[in-house]
Amino acid sequence: MPAIMYTLVNQPGLTGLKEGSRLLILADGSTLGTLGLPQLDKQAADRAGELILKGRPGTKIIPLQAANHNRTAYAVSVLEDCYFSNKKLVVFGAGHVALPLVEMAAILGFKTVVVDDRSEFCNSERFPGADALICNRDYSLSGEEIDRNTSIVIITRGHKHDQACLKEAIKSAASYIGMIGSSSKVRQTFKELLHQGASKQQLEKVAAPIGLDLGGQQPAEIALSILAEIVSMDNNGSGKPLKTVKTVVLE
Amino acid sequence: MPAIMYTLVNQPGLTGLKEGSRLLILADGSTLGTLGLPQLDKQAADRAGELILKGRPGTKIIPLQAANHNRTAYAVSVLEDCYFSNKKLVVFGAGHVALPLVEMAAILGFKTVVVDDRSEFCNSERFPGADALICNRDYSLSGEEIDRNTSIVIITRGHKHDQACLKEAIKSAASYIGMIGSSSKVRQTFKELLHQGASKQQLEKVAAPIGLDLGGQQPAEIALSILAEIVSMDNNGSGKPLKTVKTVVLE
Repeated sequence: MPAIMYTLVNQPGLTGLKEGSRLLILADGSTLGTLGLPQLDKQAADRAGELILKGRPGTKIIPLQAANHNRTAYAVSVLEDCYFSNKKLVVFGAGHVALPLVEMAAILGFKTVVVDDRSEFCNSERFPGADALICNRDYSLSGEEIDRNTSIVIITRGHKHDQACLKEAIKSAASYIGMIGSSSKVRQTFKELLHQGASKQQLEKVAAPIGLDLGGQQPAEIALSILAEIVSMDNNGSGKPLKTVKTVVLE
Repeated sequence: MPAIMYTLVNQPGLTGLKEGSRLLILADGSTLGTLGLPQLDKQAADRAGELILKGRPGTKIIPLQAANHNRTAYAVSVLEDCYFSNKKLVVFGAGHVALPLVEMAAILGFKTVVVDDRSEFCNSERFPGADALICNRDYSLSGEEIDRNTSIVIITRGHKHDQACLKEAIKSAASYIGMIGSSSKVRQTFKELLHQGASKQQLEKVAAPIGLDLGGQQPAEIALSILAEIVSMDNNGSGKPLKTVKTVVLE
């Protein structure tokens, strides 16, 4: 979860303030600690609310204001340190589903990487919000790192490319690997990879057919179902309506 | 589902072409009918792919090209008629969840309306993508229509406002009404509305607590879970991973 840590680094001599006092503000609004005065904590919380939405990591000194009981205002220096997740979404295939997928993933705080062999699809006019675009014939990642914070989505235009991407993906440390396709196409791909030496264990962790069953067939709805599956897996969600999970009984 | 209908309105005398021939192209890429020549259907399909992503309704005459067996090119006039859903999302409450919710809903093709009593939250700097912003003290809709294509999301900053919005929402024709809040807060709201004359039937259709259980707690994750619930309800989705719905057995 994103979090912002505030640390008092310089105080103008106001009673009760201590250098090094800390206030941690989490993305859900909960807090830990204090800068020493409610008025300072309030200013920090107001800033944090906006910063958490913007999602950019970074550290800087900011000026806050504290007033004493005579209402004289004093400048207080506070270190503001923004922590954000380094979760990344790698999308193989720059087609119709990739467009809304990359846009929504950015809103969810993912760094996004799009890979395709067609420069007319994989370009910054089409994906202005993507953090990286990799265009090459064999869909290789050109050094782009895949670790356990990475989710991989395989939605290329054809079975052959899907299979090649999946073959590499299952060797990676990615926490989520999903592949689009009908059950029969997925089965065919799995069979061929087993034949080429992949293990059942490697293939069983692949989310294929990809996404939660939301029933929608439009590109943006498929993108939504993919992201819902990634978030749900990451947080052990059930995918059921919360209404049925936390039932409210009407007497 | 968005769809584009192409109708041949004028043909230059090419054998096999008939005025009034129709080709319907759906958002999932499936087609019905033909303009009379594969080369014309192909041109229409290429246009349709882009138009469906842009999502703007409208009708116009477009020029396509058809060649005869001597490869002489002829101009063919075709009526292009874009149908898009008029689905609408009304969001009561312009807080942290509303921001990603409105952005993602726009990607999904919803017209979006945000309602709040605080002009410092409910403004176009904060919601550049919203189709309408309604700022008034009692969260009334100022004539904004609610029909069965409307989804209502109630996420105001407090119980009192949530209750007032829900009281009006359950009288509407909206196909989806969801309200945020813990089980106990939801129960309290329901109790008070029952006391004020609401029926059990009206309250039972309310999705509260709102959203699918994806487990995420960040604003964008909550927004995702709300939209996943709306799409899922609309399409009779199960919310389960497709992987488990359409199981691929590895022998």
